[in-house]
Amino acid sequence: MINYVTAGESHGPQLTGILTGIPAGLTLDIAAINAGLAARQGGFGRGNRQQIEHDTVTVTGGLRHGVTLGSPIALTIQNRDHAHWHAIMNPTSPATADNTLRQVTRPRPGHADLVGGMKYGHRDLRNVLERSSARETAMRVAIGQICKQLLAQLGIDLVGYVQQIGQIQVDSQASLSVAELTQAIAQNDLRITDNAQVADIHDLITATKKAGDTLGGVIRVVATNVPAGLGSYTNWDTKLDGQLAAAVMGVNAMKGVEIGDGFAAAASYGSQVMDEIDWDAENGWSRLTNHLGGFEGGMTNGMPIIIKAAMKPIPTLYKPLQSVDIQTKAIQKASVERSDTTAIVPASIVVESVVAIELARAITATFDGSKLSRLQAMVQAYRAELQAY
Amino acid sequence: MINYVTAGESHGPQLTGILTGIPAGLTLDIAAINAGLAARQGGFGRGNRQQIEHDTVTVTGGLRHGVTLGSPIALTIQNRDHAHWHAIMNPTSPATADNTLRQVTRPRPGHADLVGGMKYGHRDLRNVLERSSARETAMRVAIGQICKQLLAQLGIDLVGYVQQIGQIQVDSQASLSVAELTQAIAQNDLRITDNAQVADIHDLITATKKAGDTLGGVIRVVATNVPAGLGSYTNWDTKLDGQLAAAVMGVNAMKGVEIGDGFAAAASYGSQVMDEIDWDAENGWSRLTNHLGGFEGGMTNGMPIIIKAAMKPIPTLYKPLQSVDIQTKAIQKASVERSDTTAIVPASIVVESVVAIELARAITATFDGSKLSRLQAMVQAYRAELQAY
Amino acid sequence: MINYVTAGESHGPQLTGILTGIPAGLTLDIAAINAGLAARQGGFGRGNRQQIEHDTVTVTGGLRHGVTLGSPIALTIQNRDHAHWHAIMNPTSPATADNTLRQVTRPRPGHADLVGGMKYGHRDLRNVLERSSARETAMRVAIGQICKQLLAQLGIDLVGYVQQIGQIQVDSQASLSVAELTQAIAQNDLRITDNAQVADIHDLITATKKAGDTLGGVIRVVATNVPAGLGSYTNWDTKLDGQLAAAVMGVNAMKGVEIGDGFAAAASYGSQVMDEIDWDAENGWSRLTNHLGGFEGGMTNGMPIIIKAAMKPIPTLYKPLQSVDIQTKAIQKASVERSDTTAIVPASIVVESVVAIELARAITATFDGSKLSRLQAMVQAYRAELQAY
Amino acid sequence: MINYVTAGESHGPQLTGILTGIPAGLTLDIAAINAGLAARQGGFGRGNRQQIEHDTVTVTGGLRHGVTLGSPIALTIQNRDHAHWHAIMNPTSPATADNTLRQVTRPRPGHADLVGGMKYGHRDLRNVLERSSARETAMRVAIGQICKQLLAQLGIDLVGYVQQIGQIQVDSQASLSVAELTQAIAQNDLRITDNAQVADIHDLITATKKAGDTLGGVIRVVATNVPAGLGSYTNWDTKLDGQLAAAVMGVNAMKGVEIGDGFAAAASYGSQVMDEIDWDAENGWSRLTNHLGGFEGGMTNGMPIIIKAAMKPIPTLYKPLQSVDIQTKAIQKASVERSDTTAIVPASIVVESVVAIELARAITATFDGSKLSRLQAMVQAYRAELQAY
Repeated sequence: MINYVTAGESHGPQLTGILTGIPAGLTLDIAAINAGLAARQGGFGRGNRQQIEHDTVTVTGGLRHGVTLGSPIALTIQNRDHAHWHAIMNPTSPATADNTLRQVTRPRPGHADLVGGMKYGHRDLRNVLERSSARETAMRVAIGQICKQLLAQLGIDLVGYVQQIGQIQVDSQASLSVAELTQAIAQNDLRITDNAQVADIHDLITATKKAGDTLGGVIRVVATNVPAGLGSYTNWDTKLDGQLAAAVMGVNAMKGVEIGDGFAAAASYGSQVMDEIDWDAENGWSRLTNHLGGFEGGMTNGMPIIIKAAMKPIPTLYKPLQSVDIQTKAIQKASVERSDTTAIVPASIVVESVVAIELARAITATFDGSKLSRLQAMVQAYRAELQAY
Repeated sequence: MINYVTAGESHGPQLTGILTGIPAGLTLDIAAINAGLAARQGGFGRGNRQQIEHDTVTVTGGLRHGVTLGSPIALTIQNRDHAHWHAIMNPTSPATADNTLRQVTRPRPGHADLVGGMKYGHRDLRNVLERSSARETAMRVAIGQICKQLLAQLGIDLVGYVQQIGQIQVDSQASLSVAELTQAIAQNDLRITDNAQVADIHDLITATKKAGDTLGGVIRVVATNVPAGLGSYTNWDTKLDGQLAAAVMGVNAMKGVEIGDGFAAAASYGSQVMDEIDWDAENGWSRLTNHLGGFEGGMTNGMPIIIKAAMKPIPTLYKPLQSVDIQTKAIQKASVERSDTTAIVPASIVVESVVAIELARAITATFDGSKLSRLQAMVQAYRAELQAY
Repeated sequence: MINYVTAGESHGPQLTGILTGIPAGLTLDIAAINAGLAARQGGFGRGNRQQIEHDTVTVTGGLRHGVTLGSPIALTIQNRDHAHWHAIMNPTSPATADNTLRQVTRPRPGHADLVGGMKYGHRDLRNVLERSSARETAMRVAIGQICKQLLAQLGIDLVGYVQQIGQIQVDSQASLSVAELTQAIAQNDLRITDNAQVADIHDLITATKKAGDTLGGVIRVVATNVPAGLGSYTNWDTKLDGQLAAAVMGVNAMKGVEIGDGFAAAASYGSQVMDEIDWDAENGWSRLTNHLGGFEGGMTNGMPIIIKAAMKPIPTLYKPLQSVDIQTKAIQKASVERSDTTAIVPASIVVESVVAIELARAITATFDGSKLSRLQAMVQAYRAELQAY
Repeated sequence: MINYVTAGESHGPQLTGILTGIPAGLTLDIAAINAGLAARQGGFGRGNRQQIEHDTVTVTGGLRHGVTLGSPIALTIQNRDHAHWHAIMNPTSPATADNTLRQVTRPRPGHADLVGGMKYGHRDLRNVLERSSARETAMRVAIGQICKQLLAQLGIDLVGYVQQIGQIQVDSQASLSVAELTQAIAQNDLRITDNAQVADIHDLITATKKAGDTLGGVIRVVATNVPAGLGSYTNWDTKLDGQLAAAVMGVNAMKGVEIGDGFAAAASYGSQVMDEIDWDAENGWSRLTNHLGGFEGGMTNGMPIIIKAAMKPIPTLYKPLQSVDIQTKAIQKASVERSDTTAIVPASIVVESVVAIELARAITATFDGSKLSRLQAMVQAYRAELQAY
């Protein structure tokens, strides 16, 4: 079964990830992983650091001649900015007056700073923010894009994109295929489906930046051709929609998750939101609609999985918020650490990535994920069995 | 660390639960657990079965003379309705023509029926719905109410209540304490804070029932005095808001979860949703607002935890939806199994219960949960340390 | 994936178990489970309590008409002795002078008494020993025998038996099949393979009992036709021999575990203990010997699994050991609670049972364990693939 | 709670490890970690590769200025030998005729080769052995030595050493302290306590090497001042002796594990192996003996933890064993890959390391492991509470 863990500080030497449970025999497309990393760095509304970093992944374990071995995959992404932080963020050289500059003592509201300092006992809150920073999501993207490549070998496609920035909503183009959506969002720097709205959103971001303020938004992920029956209704912790909610809420800055119609379903009549069941001899079972976003009873039902995530605005403002210095206890303005106006565009590929991980995990938790061709054969046999039900 | 698992079918002999990790030395208030079970059975808009069941919990392990032993707690709730289903739902007597009546072959949209049948290979979908039924949540309430009693011993209070039914929203009374909220919602059969809206909602439910339709709604849970620093930003699977999202989404019929302002935060400016930091010598650290619902960086921040859950309408309609008979493949109306018009009222105590479980789990994952007095001492020392930060 | 948890005190009302992950469609042989429970209660050298209990299992969830549903299986075993302990071990009635008799304040060496009291804060050590008692293993046997029935449906057989009692060793009859071993050990009340040694061992047990002393022994478990490739060498926690060691060491009173030749291998030359590889067109791959007990690289290798467990003697002696009263701190003789001279015979079926559970878990962690016929098809396809390697 | 995962192939670029759950505020002694790595590379009886590698650890995450941050610790150990394998073990460059030399098609008995090939679908068994190789244990040593440093901060010491090589047993010097044992074993290249036996064992190893054969042995680990009450008797999977058994059995080539007297206890009378209980006002509770190796009821009991591990001889022999070529199916001699005569000396520090990891995990699973000073305070308070019991 797939699992993963990451390590590394934002301005430390590198990010490290270990991904276990990927079947042997998968040819990794490293360029595609790097394209995912580039997508995470792009998007209108980001600050200057992304011009320093040009993330690429290096694989140091679990891969030979471009093909997975079945053993754990070790990944690293260098922090190019570390060159400027070599002394301050040095892992091993002892602390001195020179290398402990740039301390953070005024915790930023909306970040992990204050609580992280309390929990771990740090007096320089840099020790918190270096890890709580969304920089870590670069590794989740690398891992998620590997999982996406695995899913593709099983006929499962997915994409994450932006559906709302601030108060501007964009048509989700729910009728498009994943391939069509992927193509549509590549036409602009906002990962949205409607080029006609690009100018308005650019204006919003620019005006917000000028005002020293920030924006959040809503992300939508669609995954298609997922076989029915992943997850289980039999206990509280086997429901796959719950696991997906955890993964999405676990992405930095996410404050809401919806499956299918989500909160809108709560305001609808039952007759409006149930997906009636259909069957034909050629294609087997289907639904006439997809209000439930591909889930019934905590299990995939064969319809496209639809997940939405609400991202709060970037907490760091150029017109900073009230904070309190942890040393002096004086009320002061919070530290300012970075400068994106909105991170909704990169976040959309992060959320896509964590959804890919959970789906790949659910597949490999169900079928033998040791060897790609065996996994493919088992999933194919399973799909045939479902169709014949 | 607290964990639990449940078993039992809706019309089988009983529900069974095993709850591990509750400290020794907790005096259980069985009457309060049963009051929670009664709350789950009440509420305007429910059907007839609740008049059959009057759930009470029996403890058969882990408790002696009313005090927990530190060993696993075994709980049972009898299904009084089983008397009518003794033959059909008999665990051990072999199948005969007589005891296999009332088969379900027309899966209900919105339920686990069809996919469950495919996954587990059932041709009588009763084998699915007996377990996927929300009847199982009775045991989650029993377990959750035990956890709530544990939390109370640590000074932590929580309550779940109804904030929206269909399109009617009720003021969440965010300024009230948990005790005040608990008292307010006890004044009506809707677990809402505003008696003035009861009549309108009764009318809505009655009219909806008459129309053969159903309603969903939104639940709000508030937990206060939770110490800062539960959960951790250090990895994707240690974020407590993610674990809470999984638990809430894992409750039957939930399609959305929000922490704090949730989706509204996504449409706001950063300056509107960050909770500025304050400090005074007497009380230590606090925030001026609570838009983030008590979480920063995946950790509790000491402010009240605010979680909202979106519940879809009951899927079973009296004007049934299109289905397909799994034997004949004929398009037919779906089976009709039960008859609540809305389950939002009972669901509010279910969601309260699963939040209680997750918070108690987080506490006992952090501090030694073997013995109540030791746990209390450790939490107290921790709170003092945080205040002195 | 199979998992389980148990609850219940030795003299409480009942033992409870919940077993999750058993495929739907398995017809349970309840009589065979009860035969396993009877085997746990039998054996020369046991005390009087076993004449009070005649354990039978009741299934209250996850089973319908004798066939598993795929939902959690709830099991209960009544403690018939509870009738004599109704007041003292009452879960809910508050403590009084009358129902708190028979307190244990002199912890018994070799038992959990003293440390359990410290950890959980008990002053009546009955609160510890009621759960730490080997009575709990009755439920592990019930669960293990269900897993054994599942394994049988996949062509996997296993048996646990006694190979040594005190210093008397019995031939393990390593060349016999599981069926033959099962038949052989049924010929006597010691679960040994050689009836000729029964009299000597009876004499040893009788003499030991007379001397107020106790005996341990060694158990051997054999499992055959386990497919190669369960477990994995790829990380420390995926090695199945490690998981088996944990399960076996987790049985009360076990102090040693061996796979294959175990400690004897440590004293041998490499040329003596490696199992040379063979192949023929009809049967595929095999080994010329089985010194490694069916494991290489933490994975099953297709040869019989051989596990041995060392059980210490029963700690409770009729000539009791030195202890200290936890109230008075006076040095006194330890309490005496029960009276088996040796529990090696019943322990052999307990160890068999936990091995069955781990093997069934490993199978269902690898292949889809939702539905028996699908699992059988997948295991069959996998076996064919291995043979064709 | 501490956890870890490793990645990397034996001749790949590097080994990678991520260790989570180490408290913030621990000053790492990198030199001591490297000394552990050197110990793993030393010892009489090893082959040539150890002269190529001189392992040192690099920390790339979770550490700043030599002090842990509470975030995951990322570790790398370069494989110096990779320079010679750059083409053949290249992670990303596609396979060509030139870089696929040195294929392994004759699986070695006693290794993961054959089953690994079957499970993961490899036709070049190098893809298996590169990961199943004991090279990976270098990272477990690095991680274990960090855990040992953490334990030292809590007053807990441990050491692993050699007690038997082939059939030659060495006195375990059970009465010595960990510090004394550590000093004693540093006097020779066999990690044994008795210099007088060094010459005989050297002779045995030399003669065995000359004969083209190999040797195993027995390792003993002692840990002192571990507080009572780690682990729990309350369920099968909470018993710490079981978790330790899994960790030890999970070390390459281990075939047996004992706690305390182990298999010898099975052959003793109860009166010989129970550890009588004592108490005095100054020191609190103790035992008169330690036959049970520091465990009762699956919990530590405050006495020294004694674990023994049986290691089979190195499977690769210079007079190779029968194998079968996986391509041609011809019976042939197995491949020869490396050349230690015995690995018992390095294995003793590997087993020490995994025991350190499990003990540190148990501590951080019980007490808040976020911050070293808080953990120390909680453990101190707990020790005081136990003493006053």
